[in-house]
Amino acid sequence: MPSSPPPISSVAVLGCGLIGQSWSALFLAHGLDVVAWDPDGGVLAALPERVEPLLGQLRALGATADRPGRLSVASSVAEAVRGTAWIQENAPEKAAIKHALYAEVEAAAAPDAVIASSTSSLTWTDLAAGVARRDRFITAHPFNPPHLMPLVELFAGDAETLGRAETFYRSVGRVTVTLKKDAVGHIANRLASALWREAVNIVAEGIADVAEVDAALVHGPGLRWSVIGAHMAYHLGGGPGGIAHYLDHLGPSQERRWATLGTPSLTPEVCRLLVDGIAREAAGRSVATLEAERDRGLMLALAARRKAGEGEGA
Amino acid sequence: MPSSPPPISSVAVLGCGLIGQSWSALFLAHGLDVVAWDPDGGVLAALPERVEPLLGQLRALGATADRPGRLSVASSVAEAVRGTAWIQENAPEKAAIKHALYAEVEAAAAPDAVIASSTSSLTWTDLAAGVARRDRFITAHPFNPPHLMPLVELFAGDAETLGRAETFYRSVGRVTVTLKKDAVGHIANRLASALWREAVNIVAEGIADVAEVDAALVHGPGLRWSVIGAHMAYHLGGGPGGIAHYLDHLGPSQERRWATLGTPSLTPEVCRLLVDGIAREAAGRSVATLEAERDRGLMLALAARRKAGEGEGA
Repeated sequence: MPSSPPPISSVAVLGCGLIGQSWSALFLAHGLDVVAWDPDGGVLAALPERVEPLLGQLRALGATADRPGRLSVASSVAEAVRGTAWIQENAPEKAAIKHALYAEVEAAAAPDAVIASSTSSLTWTDLAAGVARRDRFITAHPFNPPHLMPLVELFAGDAETLGRAETFYRSVGRVTVTLKKDAVGHIANRLASALWREAVNIVAEGIADVAEVDAALVHGPGLRWSVIGAHMAYHLGGGPGGIAHYLDHLGPSQERRWATLGTPSLTPEVCRLLVDGIAREAAGRSVATLEAERDRGLMLALAARRKAGEGEGA
Repeated sequence: MPSSPPPISSVAVLGCGLIGQSWSALFLAHGLDVVAWDPDGGVLAALPERVEPLLGQLRALGATADRPGRLSVASSVAEAVRGTAWIQENAPEKAAIKHALYAEVEAAAAPDAVIASSTSSLTWTDLAAGVARRDRFITAHPFNPPHLMPLVELFAGDAETLGRAETFYRSVGRVTVTLKKDAVGHIANRLASALWREAVNIVAEGIADVAEVDAALVHGPGLRWSVIGAHMAYHLGGGPGGIAHYLDHLGPSQERRWATLGTPSLTPEVCRLLVDGIAREAAGRSVATLEAERDRGLMLALAARRKAGEGEGA
């Protein structure tokens, strides 16, 4: 049995857009040093001031170590990954760009350093094709914004690397979910995509407008799914007999419902309904204002979970 | 212009299963008298003790009037609806049963009393076929459990009745969403059904098990959808350019993703995977225990919303 690797004290963050910034804040808040790199010098220079308000949110949540980590920037990929056991890659969602980056990483990193890709739309199989040490390569998909959202979806070909990833992300307060099989969109984005398709259909069919669909979700199933999952909701919907009773009695009517769901296309007309509908829902609020409202709502929801003892953060 | 009807001081609750019990608790907590009727004398006799713990939850949330309403039971439909301006119908989901009940209601109720159906799976059109005063008939679909979940989905043929319903349900702390067009599953259950189809597909395809799908939802999109809707999430996903930018740049990749979503059937094999998966997720907890955990989580989430000033309850 191999000796277990030492605890991780620093992380290389490659790519410092929204996802890289958010990861950096999370790692720093948990006392890990971050060495950041981005091909765009302006993005890299702006990183400390971008990270600061996110760290403030994590402090307000109480999800911080006694001593925050130290943020430094590297002038090359090699400099960023040298001496680091964990590499979080957030490059653009093009396999060729990521493959080129992995070649640079592998030329400089310690042999047992893990490369974790934040990819949302590519698969482990797509990306591992450009990695020599595939046993040390993993997809670790966060949900936006990663410093607040607990979920990290994992897939790896190697059980030991998977175990290291579970330990690592849990140590920074994340909830990990592991796929049994590599899949486009992992779990969460498949679910989000399926729901949005029907949300678009409801608008396209004239059943309700954008703001009403969003309100129904936030005050109905969204609220419930923040507490229990969809499968569990149908288990409780079955009464004392649970999901077996539900499937026996209401399974056929669910299948009929599925057959009535829409398969809309994003035609110019449908896009116009969506854009106009969002304008009405936003009611003059900028994207930045809406993001700040989202973050405030998420922080209150996370504080409520902490109270429930579900152990988010910290 | 007709004079506006006087404020509602009592509600007739017809059908006292889970939904009727939950509505009763909500109305009582907001100071309204409830006159309840159910064809099953045992269900009716048990109502006070079923309602009491739900009232306790609402008291704990602070969503109660200074003086709670009075709960009484009626020995006939006519007795329940006489002298009441609002009739909340929660009969079994069979049009013929509901039509027969409406005939009894209309023979005894005041002519401008509103009949509001809690139906989840039938449409206004289905049910209005059995009503003489269709202008006073509305579907008012709550989301389970109605005393905690804010959403009520409305559809009516008459604008004045719709306005009265919005005023009434908001007065008991609900968030109303109005459909532009009658539709099976209203909004929320269409969204829930679309999401669950893919949740079943992920299990059927062996991508992940039931517990992992539920965890990904609760710690990812579910949490986010408790704060912002699906359309708004894509608006923020578009960055400063918002949803127009998102649709231009990522619309085609969403359509490709939609094409990869599954269309599972609830075959015996799939049902077995769901039942076994729930057994593992429940880990020995009974349906009653799981419901109590759900309610506790919902109450914390609602308390957090109240803190955010979104004005749930009361």
